[in-house]
This record gives sequence, structure tokens and C-alpha cells, in this order.
Amino acid sequence: MSFSVTILGTSSAVPNSKRNPSSQVVNLNQNLFLVDCGEGTQIQLRKNKLNLSKIKHIFISHLHGDHVFGLFGLLSTYSLLGRDVDLHIYANEKLKEIIESHNKFFNNKLTYKIIFHFLNEGEKSLLYEDKFLMIKAFPLKHSIACHGFVFKEKPKLLNIKKYKIAQYNIPISEINKIKNGADFLTEDGQLIHNQELTIKSEKPCSYAYCSDTAFYPKIINEISQVDLLYHESTFANTESKRAQTTQHSTAEDAATIAKEANVKSLLLGHFSTRYSNLDILLNEAKSIFRDTEIAIEGKTYKIDQNEESDSSKK
Amino acid sequence: MSFSVTILGTSSAVPNSKRNPSSQVVNLNQNLFLVDCGEGTQIQLRKNKLNLSKIKHIFISHLHGDHVFGLFGLLSTYSLLGRDVDLHIYANEKLKEIIESHNKFFNNKLTYKIIFHFLNEGEKSLLYEDKFLMIKAFPLKHSIACHGFVFKEKPKLLNIKKYKIAQYNIPISEINKIKNGADFLTEDGQLIHNQELTIKSEKPCSYAYCSDTAFYPKIINEISQVDLLYHESTFANTESKRAQTTQHSTAEDAATIAKEANVKSLLLGHFSTRYSNLDILLNEAKSIFRDTEIAIEGKTYKIDQNEESDSSKK
Repeated sequence: MSFSVTILGTSSAVPNSKRNPSSQVVNLNQNLFLVDCGEGTQIQLRKNKLNLSKIKHIFISHLHGDHVFGLFGLLSTYSLLGRDVDLHIYANEKLKEIIESHNKFFNNKLTYKIIFHFLNEGEKSLLYEDKFLMIKAFPLKHSIACHGFVFKEKPKLLNIKKYKIAQYNIPISEINKIKNGADFLTEDGQLIHNQELTIKSEKPCSYAYCSDTAFYPKIINEISQVDLLYHESTFANTESKRAQTTQHSTAEDAATIAKEANVKSLLLGHFSTRYSNLDILLNEAKSIFRDTEIAIEGKTYKIDQNEESDSSKK
Repeated sequence: MSFSVTILGTSSAVPNSKRNPSSQVVNLNQNLFLVDCGEGTQIQLRKNKLNLSKIKHIFISHLHGDHVFGLFGLLSTYSLLGRDVDLHIYANEKLKEIIESHNKFFNNKLTYKIIFHFLNEGEKSLLYEDKFLMIKAFPLKHSIACHGFVFKEKPKLLNIKKYKIAQYNIPISEINKIKNGADFLTEDGQLIHNQELTIKSEKPCSYAYCSDTAFYPKIINEISQVDLLYHESTFANTESKRAQTTQHSTAEDAATIAKEANVKSLLLGHFSTRYSNLDILLNEAKSIFRDTEIAIEGKTYKIDQNEESDSSKK
């Protein structure tokens, strides 16, 4: 199992020469989930060798241009490449209208089907679920309807000890039951306790994406104890009033949320173009929550590190 | 006087990790004219240190996404930066509808005025004129209405010899007349011929942009003898049938047009993503028109070189 996130864009509304608008890819075992799609996302995907065709689900936090203007190019490219696999888009319902109007204007006949899933303002919802993963949306606090997303691995099956299969002649039909915690009864009636047959699997990991949002403690419950939290950090403390009026967060706001939610580590992103050097944001956040990093475009961050949380760090 | 073009994007419809979609900036004395605006143009402008606020005129050849999807982000950024100077957009009239619909959806209240100038399908027109420059549109041959643009410097004023101003005590009021070719009558009635007072100015230069288009000899008259021609060159000869069906040009088509129009030099662009190495296109074009280059993103090409054309090269 591999679980990671690759950052494609870390700028706030106005991109500059070094930072692209918001976008990132969550990768669980080569299933790619695209989160936000600012202008240039398809080019960033290519530059980072992320296979466009492996994206089947796109999550759009809110309908500000810097989180969505890359979608038109990406959807058009999919048609040019002859995509025929359904594409699921999770967003405010207005996006459906925008995309349909766009396709009409540009005479874009898509070669594939878009399946829209609407995020209702102010509401939590379960967006996606498979054998390994659940993805939920929860409301953030911004100038327009906006959602964060949390990606949670499901509890993993126990690992069966291979030599025990031979030792007790365990049939294939029993293996899944044992991985799920069952004991095993041998042919001669001996009960073998599950504990003898298995080793504990890794603990399930989780990732949360919170952009754009004002300081909003109501999200703490949604993102509690995630392994990695990406939280917007548009401003430094000197701009805290501006953060409030524009409904964005300071680095300290992000770190306070990380600390209160007892997450393992924090990635800061969505930086105002006024900061060419981001040290001020990093230092302000670290004064509250030590395990903080600046999100770097093109870098992949492992989510499933499964190290023991070192509470002394925080 | 400086006259140049900076290439921002050279890919055809599907961008890849090395090439951006179509866009370029024509620069006449720091007046910037943006030609096409594919996705990522605002980021390319920043990377190439081209001042966004110096763009007052945007020319859109046609309404395929790879020539226009960067416009939404750029227009939005202008508002975020508080632009208050009018922006002139020259394009098919459908673009007005698209932009207005976009602004409505995204609740974009622009801080500046957009003045649209429509390009009518199949028609030539004079789009812009000032003391130094004329910009004209002419029809290309593509799957939808599409125009090329030609930028022509106006004949330049004669250069007055400074020491002659002192020698004949020429008043300021006469200088412009002399620069325009007038003789000068001194206070004591002596007629000084213009030839004695001035030196010849540089010849006016010109640049033409032709993308997207099938091989279309009707444009030769429009671009005749330009100093620099940018012509699309999507395919190599092996794909000439595909070029015809998609209404694009091969490198040989571009070179044939350059040769027939007797231009000074040719820049190839709008490359299919199938060519990671562009030598095949360059070689095929050079076999017909020697003074050909591959357009390189981020490179600025001087238009006003005023070297004597070396006809033996072609």
C-alpha cells in the first residue's frame, strides 16, 4: 500500500513566476485523486509524470478561479486523448452549469461521461468509498461555499504468517476470514487462535485538505489525528486583519488548528504572492506546532509513514 | 525603437511537460501586445518578466481552447491587481458572450473595462493604428473561423543631424517638418535642402503570426516580405494527410509559404506533442527555406534587425 500527496500548486489567487494556483494529487496505490484544479494543472501533472488517465475523481473545494480554471483545459485534453472512462467531479452544483455552458461555447463534444456529485453548502458528506479508502467533505469558512476533504484509509486486514498456512494446512477459503480476525479449526479439531496465525497490520492513515478557510475550529473534529494536514496559510501575523476580512488563515491559525486536532504533521500552502521568502510563515507556525513544513510544488509527501507519533514534538 | 516577439507557448492542442499552449507577446517600445492566450499564459508572462499591466491589447486568433483558456485567469488577475486601464480584446464575437457568461458564473466584477473588437469570419480588417504601428487581421484556413495578424511599423521619420540645428539655428517648431522631409529656410533666406540636414531612418519592420492554418497561399499577399513570420508547423511530412484533415500545416507547408511570401526569416511553432525532438520539422522546413528556426519558449526574437536581406540564403 502506498499513500501520498503530490503538491502541484501553492499560490493564492494571484499566481507568480514561482508558484502555481491550487492543485494536488492524492495517490493511493496508483489511484489518483485530483484535489482542486487551478490554471496550469494539466501541465503540472505532466511535469510531475502523473498519468492523467489514472485520475477518475476530481474534488473541487470551491468555485474561485484559482481552484478551478485549469479544469477546462484538462477536460478538453481528455477528449483529445480519447478518454472513454467516466470522470467523477465533486463540487458545488454551479460547476455543472459552468462546464456545460463552456462545452457548448467551445463545441466540445466529450468522449467520456462526467458524473457530477454535488457538495451542498454547509453540509458534510461521504463522497467516495471503496475497499481501502473513504473520502469525506466537510464545510470550511470562506467568502463562498467551500469544503475541505479528508481521505481515510480503512482498517487494514491482518497479515497472515505464511508458514502457518503450510503448518496447519489452511485452505484458501479460510484465509480471508483469518485476515479479518477469525480463529482456525484444523482437520483434527484443534482450535488455533488468530493471534498465533497473524501479525498486526499497519494502522490506517489519513490526510486532510483545508483550503480556503478562515480560522475555523469547527473543522477540528473532522480532521482529528490525521497523519498529514494540508492547511492554507495565506498570510503572516502582520496581515491577520487582512486574513479575517478575506476569510483566509494565517500560519498561526493553521498551526493552532493542527495542534488542537492533534495531527501528526502539517503542510502549509496557498501563499500570498507578497511572500517570496516563506520563512516567516514557517517560523510563525512552528512556534505553535513543531512538525510543520512548507508545501513545495512537485514534491510528494508520504502519508503512510506509520511512525509512532512523538507527542513531545508538539 | 525596439521591436520584438517573446514566445510563451509552442504546443498544439495537447500541452506536454515541455511546451505550453499558444501565446506570445509582441513588444514595440515596451507596448506589449498579447497574441493568443492558452492556459498558463499569465504564469508564462511572469516567468518571462513581462509586465502584465503593459498589455493593453489582446488578439485571439480563434476560439479553440489551446488559444484562449488562459484568458479567464488573466482577466481575473487583472481585477485582483486593481487594473483600471481599458483592455482591448480582438476576437470572434462569441468570445464576448463566453467572457460575460464566465464573469457571471464566477461573480467576477472587473475593475476595468473590456472593449471588444470583433473579427468577422473570412474578412480582413485594420485592428489598431498609432503613430508607429499598424496591426491588421487576415483570414486563415482552419476548422473554425481563424485569423492571422500582421504587425507593421509605419515609415520612420528621418533623423535630423544635431550639429545642423546649431549651425543653422533651427527653431524647435521646424524640427518635425524637417524630420518629415521638408527643407529649411534660414533667417537670412538661405534654402537648406533636407538631404543636408538629415540621415535616412531605418526601414520599417514587420511581423506576422499565422496559427492555426492549413496550407493557404491566399495569405502570401498579407504577409509579403515581413521581417519575421511565425507560422504553425504542427506536423512533419509523414503526417501530411493528418495535417490536411485537421486543417493544420506541415513544416514544409510553412516553409513554402515563407518562401513564396519572400519573408526574411521564419519561426516554426504549434508543434504536435508526438515530436519530442523537433529536428525533423526544422530540417524539412530548411530544405525549402533556409532561414528557419524552431520557436523556443521564453526566447525573445528581434524583429527590427534591419540587416540587408541575403537572398542567396533562400
